[in-house]
Amino acid sequence: MPDLDPAIAERLTRNDAGLVPAVVQQHDTREVLMLAWMNDEALRQTLTTGRATYWSRSRQEMWVKGETSGHRQWVHEVRLDCDGDTLLVLVDQEGPACHTGARTCFDADRLPLGAETGGGPA
Amino acid sequence: MPDLDPAIAERLTRNDAGLVPAVVQQHDTREVLMLAWMNDEALRQTLTTGRATYWSRSRQEMWVKGETSGHRQWVHEVRLDCDGDTLLVLVDQEGPACHTGARTCFDADRLPLGAETGGGPA
Repeated sequence: MPDLDPAIAERLTRNDAGLVPAVVQQHDTREVLMLAWMNDEALRQTLTTGRATYWSRSRQEMWVKGETSGHRQWVHEVRLDCDGDTLLVLVDQEGPACHTGARTCFDADRLPLGAETGGGPA
Repeated sequence: MPDLDPAIAERLTRNDAGLVPAVVQQHDTREVLMLAWMNDEALRQTLTTGRATYWSRSRQEMWVKGETSGHRQWVHEVRLDCDGDTLLVLVDQEGPACHTGARTCFDADRLPLGAETGGGPA
């Protein structure tokens, strides 16, 4: 298979596992849907197929989002950040993005602000 | 200093360096501003002071966003994702979020979609 465009590959700053985090955002509502990880091949497939494709760290395999669930992500834009170490992927999400069935992976757990709630000595 | 609330700490899934990525989003426009990293103490300070605070991986020190630049982030909400391994921090960003002077760290580099641009054999 072809490699990722070298002009893009040379701008990526990968972690020790060869991965870059991808922030996934719904293109119109701008909801942040999830965070996933891409290696060079996942990014190449995402850019060329228009289907968001990630590297699954738990399964150690390529993962085309929605391939089993049907909750596909159609890619509208991919942006690289100023340091080349994070991607922003703007998608059109079919159905829920989260495996729990929630629209986004950030819907369930809002942390409390304001109080010093720590248990240790000051 | 006090520890991070144990009820929160036990829900975090940290990487090998003890860090969790934080997606930072402008609370009203929903622009994704940047991605940064937090350890337990950065999260505790973020939750209790209302000022977004990160762990700088390059400088290996705590980093209160805007402390030198004045481009502060005032925290509106912090959410933990379904796996406990990513934070979403909703802020009010003063001035540009990016050290380049751009509003967000994702403004400059839009990757080309669609074409098989790779150089290798098919």
